[in-house]
Amino acid sequence: MESNLYIGLVHHPIYDKRREIVATAVTNFDIHDIARCARTFGVGGFFVITPLESQIQLVERIVRHWVEGVGSVYNPTRKDSLSLIRVSRTIDEADREISDLWGRKTKRIATGASPHPKSIGFEILRKLLRDQNTPFLILFGTGWGLTQEVKDSADYLLAPIEGKGYNHLSVRSAVAIILDRLLGDR
Amino acid sequence: MESNLYIGLVHHPIYDKRREIVATAVTNFDIHDIARCARTFGVGGFFVITPLESQIQLVERIVRHWVEGVGSVYNPTRKDSLSLIRVSRTIDEADREISDLWGRKTKRIATGASPHPKSIGFEILRKLLRDQNTPFLILFGTGWGLTQEVKDSADYLLAPIEGKGYNHLSVRSAVAIILDRLLGDR
Repeated sequence: MESNLYIGLVHHPIYDKRREIVATAVTNFDIHDIARCARTFGVGGFFVITPLESQIQLVERIVRHWVEGVGSVYNPTRKDSLSLIRVSRTIDEADREISDLWGRKTKRIATGASPHPKSIGFEILRKLLRDQNTPFLILFGTGWGLTQEVKDSADYLLAPIEGKGYNHLSVRSAVAIILDRLLGDR
Repeated sequence: MESNLYIGLVHHPIYDKRREIVATAVTNFDIHDIARCARTFGVGGFFVITPLESQIQLVERIVRHWVEGVGSVYNPTRKDSLSLIRVSRTIDEADREISDLWGRKTKRIATGASPHPKSIGFEILRKLLRDQNTPFLILFGTGWGLTQEVKDSADYLLAPIEGKGYNHLSVRSAVAIILDRLLGDR
């Protein structure tokens, strides 16, 4: 059965270093690392979310290279993982695509590095995901993270990964750890 | 107390796609992502292992930029993480540096994507690490992974991360997940 969890990697709206709302450029390593994690843990799909036409074309070119082009012959395991990638202009667009596929409202999960009184723990979310009739979209912010508005409008806010007084993981590492905690064999 | 676990990122000896033993180039994203994970989970140090003089100089230049140069002012959290980095020419050299510091023989742990009859599980290794008098060096292979000889000479071989029939994580993602399983709050 297809997984009910989808990843959204958000390039807008997110904060920059000065807490201004910006659109970040797509990072090639994000695409590959997150797609490979998504495939490892059996995620339903990986939405790269960006409104910038140049970035949409870049992602489509990378995916085409590995899924249909010479890359698919050179390294077929990349074809497996990168074929999970979809491109959306907005979070709403990704959400709608999933809702249409499932015929059910998508539940949104926001992530971030800071604690929040309303956040839920990993074990609770792991249990919620067992409701196989509901699709979930887990959102990861690039740059300095998801905006307050995105967090406020999410159905759930996931607790941060607790480090030893340091909470500056790359988004790639955060996705790897969070998918393992939610879907990995225990 | 300083952690007794050290990371070694091995650029030689490792296999390439054709199972020939080679030396890979250092990847900037490996340096940053793994250093930030190491700092997050309180690892004792992060050894970048490469015999190539050009690559040693590259790593030293990156570290200098973020630890002493303009990068240390631009983003002090990078200074925190990248100051954990050491460069070694061989696995033995890294091992010796740790053994000298601790006055005890270092135990080596090899990692890889394939199952092995002698491998130990994450929970067992998590418990072994509680022996705070013994330093441990956990080795991660770049390219197509650590050589058989490195695995055979290790004290422990860690079980692979089990995916849904897909075991092609990036080394960056594997380090993130493994550190979380060994040292993360549970």
